[in-house]
Amino acid sequence: MIIIMDAEATPFQIDNVIAEAESNGWQTHLSQGSGDTVIGLQGNGQPLDLFKVGQMPGVRETMAITQQFKLVSRTFSPKNTTIKVRDVVVGSDKLVVMAGPCSVESREQLLETAHAVKQAGATMLRGGAYKPRSSPYSFQGLGEAGLKLLAEAREMTGLPIVTEVMSPTKVALVAVYADVLQIGARNMQNYDLLNAVGQAQKPVLLKRGMSATLEDLLMAAEYILQHGNTQVMLCERGVRTFDTKYTRNTFDVNAIPLLKDLSHLPVIADPSHGIGIRRHVPPIAMSSVAAGADGLIIETHPNPDKAISDGPQSLTLPQFAELMSQIRRMASAVGRSC
Amino acid sequence: MIIIMDAEATPFQIDNVIAEAESNGWQTHLSQGSGDTVIGLQGNGQPLDLFKVGQMPGVRETMAITQQFKLVSRTFSPKNTTIKVRDVVVGSDKLVVMAGPCSVESREQLLETAHAVKQAGATMLRGGAYKPRSSPYSFQGLGEAGLKLLAEAREMTGLPIVTEVMSPTKVALVAVYADVLQIGARNMQNYDLLNAVGQAQKPVLLKRGMSATLEDLLMAAEYILQHGNTQVMLCERGVRTFDTKYTRNTFDVNAIPLLKDLSHLPVIADPSHGIGIRRHVPPIAMSSVAAGADGLIIETHPNPDKAISDGPQSLTLPQFAELMSQIRRMASAVGRSC
Amino acid sequence: MIIIMDAEATPFQIDNVIAEAESNGWQTHLSQGSGDTVIGLQGNGQPLDLFKVGQMPGVRETMAITQQFKLVSRTFSPKNTTIKVRDVVVGSDKLVVMAGPCSVESREQLLETAHAVKQAGATMLRGGAYKPRSSPYSFQGLGEAGLKLLAEAREMTGLPIVTEVMSPTKVALVAVYADVLQIGARNMQNYDLLNAVGQAQKPVLLKRGMSATLEDLLMAAEYILQHGNTQVMLCERGVRTFDTKYTRNTFDVNAIPLLKDLSHLPVIADPSHGIGIRRHVPPIAMSSVAAGADGLIIETHPNPDKAISDGPQSLTLPQFAELMSQIRRMASAVGRSC
Amino acid sequence: MIIIMDAEATPFQIDNVIAEAESNGWQTHLSQGSGDTVIGLQGNGQPLDLFKVGQMPGVRETMAITQQFKLVSRTFSPKNTTIKVRDVVVGSDKLVVMAGPCSVESREQLLETAHAVKQAGATMLRGGAYKPRSSPYSFQGLGEAGLKLLAEAREMTGLPIVTEVMSPTKVALVAVYADVLQIGARNMQNYDLLNAVGQAQKPVLLKRGMSATLEDLLMAAEYILQHGNTQVMLCERGVRTFDTKYTRNTFDVNAIPLLKDLSHLPVIADPSHGIGIRRHVPPIAMSSVAAGADGLIIETHPNPDKAISDGPQSLTLPQFAELMSQIRRMASAVGRSC
Repeated sequence: MIIIMDAEATPFQIDNVIAEAESNGWQTHLSQGSGDTVIGLQGNGQPLDLFKVGQMPGVRETMAITQQFKLVSRTFSPKNTTIKVRDVVVGSDKLVVMAGPCSVESREQLLETAHAVKQAGATMLRGGAYKPRSSPYSFQGLGEAGLKLLAEAREMTGLPIVTEVMSPTKVALVAVYADVLQIGARNMQNYDLLNAVGQAQKPVLLKRGMSATLEDLLMAAEYILQHGNTQVMLCERGVRTFDTKYTRNTFDVNAIPLLKDLSHLPVIADPSHGIGIRRHVPPIAMSSVAAGADGLIIETHPNPDKAISDGPQSLTLPQFAELMSQIRRMASAVGRSC
Repeated sequence: MIIIMDAEATPFQIDNVIAEAESNGWQTHLSQGSGDTVIGLQGNGQPLDLFKVGQMPGVRETMAITQQFKLVSRTFSPKNTTIKVRDVVVGSDKLVVMAGPCSVESREQLLETAHAVKQAGATMLRGGAYKPRSSPYSFQGLGEAGLKLLAEAREMTGLPIVTEVMSPTKVALVAVYADVLQIGARNMQNYDLLNAVGQAQKPVLLKRGMSATLEDLLMAAEYILQHGNTQVMLCERGVRTFDTKYTRNTFDVNAIPLLKDLSHLPVIADPSHGIGIRRHVPPIAMSSVAAGADGLIIETHPNPDKAISDGPQSLTLPQFAELMSQIRRMASAVGRSC
Repeated sequence: MIIIMDAEATPFQIDNVIAEAESNGWQTHLSQGSGDTVIGLQGNGQPLDLFKVGQMPGVRETMAITQQFKLVSRTFSPKNTTIKVRDVVVGSDKLVVMAGPCSVESREQLLETAHAVKQAGATMLRGGAYKPRSSPYSFQGLGEAGLKLLAEAREMTGLPIVTEVMSPTKVALVAVYADVLQIGARNMQNYDLLNAVGQAQKPVLLKRGMSATLEDLLMAAEYILQHGNTQVMLCERGVRTFDTKYTRNTFDVNAIPLLKDLSHLPVIADPSHGIGIRRHVPPIAMSSVAAGADGLIIETHPNPDKAISDGPQSLTLPQFAELMSQIRRMASAVGRSC
Repeated sequence: MIIIMDAEATPFQIDNVIAEAESNGWQTHLSQGSGDTVIGLQGNGQPLDLFKVGQMPGVRETMAITQQFKLVSRTFSPKNTTIKVRDVVVGSDKLVVMAGPCSVESREQLLETAHAVKQAGATMLRGGAYKPRSSPYSFQGLGEAGLKLLAEAREMTGLPIVTEVMSPTKVALVAVYADVLQIGARNMQNYDLLNAVGQAQKPVLLKRGMSATLEDLLMAAEYILQHGNTQVMLCERGVRTFDTKYTRNTFDVNAIPLLKDLSHLPVIADPSHGIGIRRHVPPIAMSSVAAGADGLIIETHPNPDKAISDGPQSLTLPQFAELMSQIRRMASAVGRSC
């Protein structure tokens, strides 16, 4: 059960409600941030007198929630959440398209990409400065130097920046440069990291883990929202199945309508990782928009064959421009714009 | 390796080529039917003198094929295969939509559905007379009575009929009534059945097994094509993954562009089984068309809550009509018609 | 719900119980064979007056069963089922070991194997005469000639024979030669075949499908038992997962204690397919016995590198003999013999 | 490729070898710690003159390694690695058994468990002070207070302590108390954490991720070893598959012989998570030993029904004692002791 407080509720009123719950044997969890102030009840207390609680000063609403996830659920918040990232609004009728290289490799590579994707119509710039790699011997990213290049690219193009953060100790640093903090698939259940980006009160792009159920993904988002940070985008990027001969992952297009149904948070599709083969990225991008995604994140590179990471799934810059014109047609077929 | 013969090659010429191959230690496999005449070489023979073989009377071409599947591959047949089912052409720019109930339950149920889907724009009628059920205690279908009702519905609406055949002993009977023989997911590797529908020289809708890789599916189709029956539609209907809480299967949208790339056969999407929840069938149908499917097969029922099987994923008749108008918009966004 | 009749119940008494159930709106299903006579109720009838039904002549017991599977469940039959195959008893404290080649290839190959595995302590001979192969171009088995060789090997060694049947039309023929009819993983949900082996009233070795849940496997067995044939052995042979780099399948050792818990039927482990690599077959065989399997089925070949099928997972004859001595030690560690 | 230096190689000799490699265009990676000094070559340099490099002062051996993982592979280190944890040796003929509660809940609970498992023959004590939980509303562990209780239990029983660390920022603190640092399944690819425990030079128990391939697991271990910390135990704890109705995970018993084959590191089995049902933990424990595991980690609790976490899979203390006597029998059947 959760208790939602009025926006104007005073600390004293909040404390009173908490005291009432705890005197009935409940543990309480207070979520306060950019969104609503919510008191969550946990444990095995006595049922509260809902009439009495509902009359307490400052209480707006009480709500029984039986799903494991609470703050992320449509039950809790029936309206779509929109997230403002500089001038871009995520979760509206206008699709967002995040494009850029897997890794920031050099100033030239990044700026050339940034200008090209901006011109083609992308609304954000993606690029990795810290790279989680299966092998310790692979390129691990440029680090802060990469963040600085991203900031420079933003200055030149106006595109907000999405970039990954891999460790709670780096959240503060990455948040200085980034507009959206990306949590990678491998870190979806790195709870200290989720808590850290929750506290950072910045927009977060949360990628689904390789074999995470939708419930797992929503619970991971719940970790962020319970710090009062509701600016979370859920990202489908393909799951691991038995079939790996012709495709890197299995893009779970079902997740798009299901997540939109279960949660009020925006859903972003990542067709690049979802299928992992350059020439098949466009049909998966198209199918994501058709299924109701609020946006796309797409790997692009001036010279994919020389890319340090994810070359085989990166579009060339002309391919990206061509895809953007297809996406605009698709957006209009489903009553959206781009 | 395969040797492709001229259309006018005589039996004598064919025998000569076979003799040449066998004298070099190869087993041969002759595929003759509605398509090309193809001699496949199997086993561990001596390399043939390709120049000599190429000069033999009646030989059009020799072809080394390293993939496991041969006749179904794009390498073998670069152009898209189209399949004619009465007046309907599968595999062209015009999408096909097969609609109807999971099971044929009664004359009223079937005819009402057939008229409604016809009016909404469906191009074929689906309906099960023989039903493979996990439980021996579940309804197993009306059998031949169901086939007769399907034929009656065809007569009244002009819609060709798609219906499942479960056993090699029933192929001849079902082929009397059906226009397209459906092989269900559970029977995708029932090789005697594949051979039987191969020999029947009728169009086949081959559903992907629950955990079949794309290669498994293509090899199953190869069983049919090696009887000279090239009229095979590949059907993606969702695969089994770890996530079953909110969805019946995981619809593998990646399979659509991948199958179109690997094979010349048309690809049909089954969003009803693919997601298994009525209100989410339309977005998955839309995403299938966006990804390049040549057609859809969709369960519809006049009263899904009373359906004997698959009620939860069946559209009502008005929902189907509404979906058809969306699909038409989507088809045009990807340069096709419907 | 099911109604179990006394062994001495007359046809008239059985008919009376059926009439009572049907007059209350139930469909009934009669299972009569080598085991109990059981009347299963299906559909949506009125609740029966259990006191009245329990008093009807010939009724031994009524039982509410909420699991999907009934006749195969421990609830229905709490004691372990044992199956007599000539002199061998499957499901007792003494482990059974079925050994032999994947495919019957020649008289020499089979007889050499049969003598060797007999001497090493195997209790049955396995060998495929009809082979389900992913590729239509692969060796499909010797057919009836292979069955005859198996019968000859039985005559010389006294070992009962396990061999696969792939089609309902072949059940009668295979049953002439075989002591145990094997249903392969690809055919686990080939319902016409399940019905045919159910009717054959012969022992059946039912292999779990590649991605069949335990419930799917038990439902498939239910198809056989409902024909009154309770002589079914359940066979774990590995499932399909995401990890295929170093192993052919993922052997699901959990299935062994779970199946023994859910069902009264004997459980056989197939470590050869379960891991698919010769040198790792012994540890998986050992672990199966440790987990409670009632027997093993193991591929062995006089010259695995020349085997037509499954060579990489077949033990040589000396390796098999060595494994048998380890299995004897293992059997005694878990209070069984071999 | 890697270059292994003599134990007595001087820094100057090492620098010379590095300079030689880098002048040929390679990046180098130096791994120095409790094990060998190894220079790894990465990137796309010119092939080295192996004869010349082999003659350089201080060089013991050069080795081409084509697998992705190097330091963890049997190719690199053919002999089994043993790890000393106080008086316990992991990886020898004597099995290790780590037992204790999922979460440290209270002094009484922990000490009662510690005494009981010690008496039953366990060789280490496990217990979680920091708990990664799917829900932010679940109990997150006692934190440092829990670590102190573990240390107290060690003092009273002499059992070394295994406990999880979830964040790089906590490694130093946990390392003060723990003898073995556990990395949980969710953090298997938390690279900052892997680097931190690598640098800590303490024994590590690395759990396989829920859908990690064996290669993924070995690459994660490689992250630790490249800091010169070879004291890593690999832990199989079940993977995620399509079958979740009767079991929490699918215990991948194949992983045990495969990991022993691919790597020199000890392999520990976790049957508690592997099957997730108390009464089925013993057969899976037995099967793990039969398959060649070097040890077991087993959840035990004085009162599992009141456990805060993982109650359904925790053994009672008498059940654990009974299991220990079975394991001793099993160990002797496979030529080991316990």
